[in-house]
Amino acid sequence: MNTDLMFIVPAGALLALIFAAFLYYTVKKQSPGNEKMQELSKSIREGAMAFLISEYKVLVIFVIVVSCLLFVASMIQDFNMHWGLAVAFIVGAIFSAVSGNIGMRTATMANARTAEGSKSSVSKGLSIAFSSGAVMGMSVVGLGVLGIVSLYYVFHIMLELSIETTTNILFGFGFGASSIALFARVGGGIYTKSADVGADLVGKVEAGIPEDDPRNPAVIADQVGDNVGDVAGMGADLFESYVDSIIATMALSIMAAAGVQRFSPVTYGNNALFIPMIVAAIGIISSIIGTLIVTLGKGKNVYGALRNSLFLATGLTAILSGIIIWYLIERWEPFAAMLAGLIAGIIIGLSTEYFTSEKRKPAQGIAGASKTGPATVIIQGLQVGMISTIIPTIAVVAAMIAAYEFSGFYGVALSAVGMLSILGVSLATDCYGPVADNAQGISEMAGMGVEIRQRTEQLDAVGNTTAAMGKGFAIGSAAITSLALIFTYMITANTMLVDMGKQAITLSLDNPYLVSGIFIGAMLPFIFAALTMGAVGKAAYSMVEEVRYQFKEFKLLENDKNKPDYERCVKISTNRALKEMILPSLMAVVIPIVVGLVLKPEGLGGLLMGSIATGFLLAVFLANSGGAWDNAKKYVESGNLGGKGSPAHKATVIGDTVGDPCKDTSGPALNILIKLMSIVSLVFLPLIIHFHL
Amino acid sequence: MNTDLMFIVPAGALLALIFAAFLYYTVKKQSPGNEKMQELSKSIREGAMAFLISEYKVLVIFVIVVSCLLFVASMIQDFNMHWGLAVAFIVGAIFSAVSGNIGMRTATMANARTAEGSKSSVSKGLSIAFSSGAVMGMSVVGLGVLGIVSLYYVFHIMLELSIETTTNILFGFGFGASSIALFARVGGGIYTKSADVGADLVGKVEAGIPEDDPRNPAVIADQVGDNVGDVAGMGADLFESYVDSIIATMALSIMAAAGVQRFSPVTYGNNALFIPMIVAAIGIISSIIGTLIVTLGKGKNVYGALRNSLFLATGLTAILSGIIIWYLIERWEPFAAMLAGLIAGIIIGLSTEYFTSEKRKPAQGIAGASKTGPATVIIQGLQVGMISTIIPTIAVVAAMIAAYEFSGFYGVALSAVGMLSILGVSLATDCYGPVADNAQGISEMAGMGVEIRQRTEQLDAVGNTTAAMGKGFAIGSAAITSLALIFTYMITANTMLVDMGKQAITLSLDNPYLVSGIFIGAMLPFIFAALTMGAVGKAAYSMVEEVRYQFKEFKLLENDKNKPDYERCVKISTNRALKEMILPSLMAVVIPIVVGLVLKPEGLGGLLMGSIATGFLLAVFLANSGGAWDNAKKYVESGNLGGKGSPAHKATVIGDTVGDPCKDTSGPALNILIKLMSIVSLVFLPLIIHFHL
Repeated sequence: MNTDLMFIVPAGALLALIFAAFLYYTVKKQSPGNEKMQELSKSIREGAMAFLISEYKVLVIFVIVVSCLLFVASMIQDFNMHWGLAVAFIVGAIFSAVSGNIGMRTATMANARTAEGSKSSVSKGLSIAFSSGAVMGMSVVGLGVLGIVSLYYVFHIMLELSIETTTNILFGFGFGASSIALFARVGGGIYTKSADVGADLVGKVEAGIPEDDPRNPAVIADQVGDNVGDVAGMGADLFESYVDSIIATMALSIMAAAGVQRFSPVTYGNNALFIPMIVAAIGIISSIIGTLIVTLGKGKNVYGALRNSLFLATGLTAILSGIIIWYLIERWEPFAAMLAGLIAGIIIGLSTEYFTSEKRKPAQGIAGASKTGPATVIIQGLQVGMISTIIPTIAVVAAMIAAYEFSGFYGVALSAVGMLSILGVSLATDCYGPVADNAQGISEMAGMGVEIRQRTEQLDAVGNTTAAMGKGFAIGSAAITSLALIFTYMITANTMLVDMGKQAITLSLDNPYLVSGIFIGAMLPFIFAALTMGAVGKAAYSMVEEVRYQFKEFKLLENDKNKPDYERCVKISTNRALKEMILPSLMAVVIPIVVGLVLKPEGLGGLLMGSIATGFLLAVFLANSGGAWDNAKKYVESGNLGGKGSPAHKATVIGDTVGDPCKDTSGPALNILIKLMSIVSLVFLPLIIHFHL
Repeated sequence: MNTDLMFIVPAGALLALIFAAFLYYTVKKQSPGNEKMQELSKSIREGAMAFLISEYKVLVIFVIVVSCLLFVASMIQDFNMHWGLAVAFIVGAIFSAVSGNIGMRTATMANARTAEGSKSSVSKGLSIAFSSGAVMGMSVVGLGVLGIVSLYYVFHIMLELSIETTTNILFGFGFGASSIALFARVGGGIYTKSADVGADLVGKVEAGIPEDDPRNPAVIADQVGDNVGDVAGMGADLFESYVDSIIATMALSIMAAAGVQRFSPVTYGNNALFIPMIVAAIGIISSIIGTLIVTLGKGKNVYGALRNSLFLATGLTAILSGIIIWYLIERWEPFAAMLAGLIAGIIIGLSTEYFTSEKRKPAQGIAGASKTGPATVIIQGLQVGMISTIIPTIAVVAAMIAAYEFSGFYGVALSAVGMLSILGVSLATDCYGPVADNAQGISEMAGMGVEIRQRTEQLDAVGNTTAAMGKGFAIGSAAITSLALIFTYMITANTMLVDMGKQAITLSLDNPYLVSGIFIGAMLPFIFAALTMGAVGKAAYSMVEEVRYQFKEFKLLENDKNKPDYERCVKISTNRALKEMILPSLMAVVIPIVVGLVLKPEGLGGLLMGSIATGFLLAVFLANSGGAWDNAKKYVESGNLGGKGSPAHKATVIGDTVGDPCKDTSGPALNILIKLMSIVSLVFLPLIIHFHL
């Protein structure tokens, strides 16, 4: 070890995992409520676990195939790929899957407990829901850092591989994490929306029964979907961003250490390598402190509590990182770069909140457009989504340029690390949402009375806001992480070429192959969005048929004693989601390799750049349009413009239905697309270069 | 002159103008129909001219301001800009405006004559409508080529400026044409859709009167809109592409002549300069022949006649160009490059037709989605639009790479010239559409009986198909023209720098300023689309209020003798469209300059690339989604899925309303955005370079 502070890294990781375990047991020892509630919670949990297990079956095959390919490739000397890549890939996949599993288990255990806790007070309910979210947050950051530091230790310290080879091996860890994220996000996104749309179209629209009515056979699948999409999917997405950003920074730190002028304006020495890991560890500690003020708090302002915990964690991370970076390298520039990312992340989150909140003009404007019918609601929503790309784009661009001016490409990657450093607490805030949503559903289904329902509604409403911010944050971090990865791609490619005694490539816009790559890359997000949207449609259609069949066959609406078969709906969502996720997922893995081989490394660079730019914009557009439509509907439902049942309500419900697959399936799936294609390119770069020499 | 064949160029231009005049008088001498028809035609014509005149008032100010700025800039020696730029700019603006004016005059004269001609036969009606479209087509190509060759003659031959300076001056001609195109496309697009939506929402939906009912006060504004948007807007758009592609090829030919390896694989000698102009002239002659087979034909297959004329013109252009290129430079590669563009243009047109035709699966699938309501119609339409980006993207990329491999950047620009060479006839096919549409409206309003209505409906239906193809073609040509311009930008920038004894710049993706430019560039089409969409919404809202007011105040529905005040509606559309077009238009001109000054020439290069890629994709997406929604509605209206008045019809009408601003305002406006920003960058490049040295 080059530094006596390095102990902080494994310590931080372990601390996160211990804290996660502590929170898990704190949640577990809460009362799970009455029998009815327990039963509902159990159904949701079993459905969620059934999905995860089915998904893992597909994943295991994928992981085995890919790791075998990586292993075989490492046998071929010419390709210059280390067998450690295969190992790291497997570890990455397992760590991501485990963190997702822990998060889902906790979330599906906490839902009934949150509803029950709300009996004593709102803040009790908040504490339980947030604690369960924090279990996910802490598992992700703990396992993420633990994975990286372990692989670093094994390959660099124990096996004494060079630091260059070690970081190349770490790309495999990112690739493993990305693969899980892909399936979790795409499969989870299709699952959640097909169940939601299916439940709503037949239950609410055709049969006229309320949302979360236990007579609706798809109601459990719908609740499962919240966990599958927003807990497991979101968690895996951010696990990927988190580890990718740290790995990219480590890879770039080698250049920064060498002080190569083109890559970094100054020399930071060998300690630059440890900064991303140490900042992550500091972020963990700050996140734990931030978490405690929510779980221990007694305040009634739910949103305020969540926001304060985020701000506290942000402030602490900033201060402590500044001190430690100065201690390590006696320079302030990398700290400034990191800070740029941290601030950009918050700005993107706030912008998302503005454009989607029902309290703000954009969503209210969409609701107002319902005066001239659903068509104008749709047009206005498209507009809001498109306009909402301005602030996130400027934030990303400004952070990138600032970070680059401070510390070169190393700084850009570090800004992504900065943005993600408080993931422990910000992910807790995200995962709080679906738990509160589930608690609300259970209180409804179990007939817990008006007062409890109002309390859980309050928790749920805040969950919607934090979910919107979380989505913006996920997109922003995906963009800046992808940028860090593409810079790493360019530098790694040239380092490899120069090491082989060949000429470095220039990724210049006057190369038509590169321009072709940009065009194809810019096209992919559109195709990916269309495929995932179509998948939701197909899966929802199967669900609609099933619900209609059960209503008719079991006479569910005629006789209260007849019980629906929840499990069949859960199975349909599961099977369809897994089937439909295959094509877009394979696309994301195969296309970069094919383009790299056909259009050369330059074309692949263009592909990545095109897909990052357009993917980021399309993701923001889809997520914010969808969020704004959702909240326009909620705005009407809370009594404005005629309230529930009015023509305005009907028009905004149409908007919401259009927005659902946009914001919960296609938009978030694009985060994964851009990161995964970047990391695949990095992993297979030696192969691509080999075939072009 | 370096070649004895050069006489073809002015001869071709004059031939086009003579042929246009001949067609104009042929159309004019047809019977204009009865008094009622003449009156309607006159109202449309006056409305269209009123819009043009109001638009010109804005344009004159813009042209004066910009030409003064250009002139002042040319006084400052350091900026290295020639005063000829200001002259060329004015000429470009005037030539584009004149061709638009001729086209509008003819189209608004031909509408009643087409309806009247349909009395004798469908082919008679076709001949009149197509002839009037061909007046526009021939005016555009004639004036385009005439402008370029005149400026070339004045500055290069008479004033003996170097060929480099002359081509730089020609960029001014492109800039002038682009400015008119911007206002015509954006203003026209806002006009046409606000009138359409306003007329439909109050007339069809609220009052329940049929489309084109003369009691609807907005009905004339709606008819005017077809001319303003689809004749003047489309014409100016393609005038811009046409001249830009020729100018870019000329600029790049200098490199090709010098045989600079990086820009062109081989030396073509000085004659390379004349190839684009001569190919354009050949295209004109071929287009005239293609046009004649429609106007002289007696066949009943309207679509077949139009398609055959296109194919004949394409074939003739290809063969003649091949021969002449060989004669000029004794090489086949530039011909192959040109052919690549020609083929890509046809493929993009056919792809657009497939994805939007009511006879094909995509639009029918959208109609089928109406079973589950309007929301699924919207989702399915978004999907179709997104998926439809594949073929155009691959066509553009393949054409670019093929053209580059054949003849370097010169080849890429030449492929755009190839694609646009048959503009004379393809624009005739486009402009035929609104004339047939108007004829159909007039036959309806004048109560010409069922048989005539069926005939004009047949003409109109074909017009819809050709309009879709024309839109695809316009987008494809905009993309490849913009690519030619961006390559010209890069090469010109480096030529300037090297001439000044400075180091050439590299537009490489490892430059964060360039990457920032790409992000901002990729964002602009979203913002531009949102602004234009919003403008339609605001303008349509004013129209809705006016129509409601007139219905109530003049008791139009209660008493047949009360006449609506058409002119007021025309005025509202005109004023709102002109007001709303200012912001997006200024954006397109100012942003490239600002970005160039702030993010350096590299950032500006990135901006152009990002905006071209995303602008192209978004334009295809919006145009094809809109077209498919439109035809899904028509599919239902022709008796499928319950026909008119069914729930399926209502759902698809909502889709169509959403699609209207997408396909007729925002999508087409993006064509202009990407070309205009490229040409603005080229014109102000000396200034930008000056401030960065």
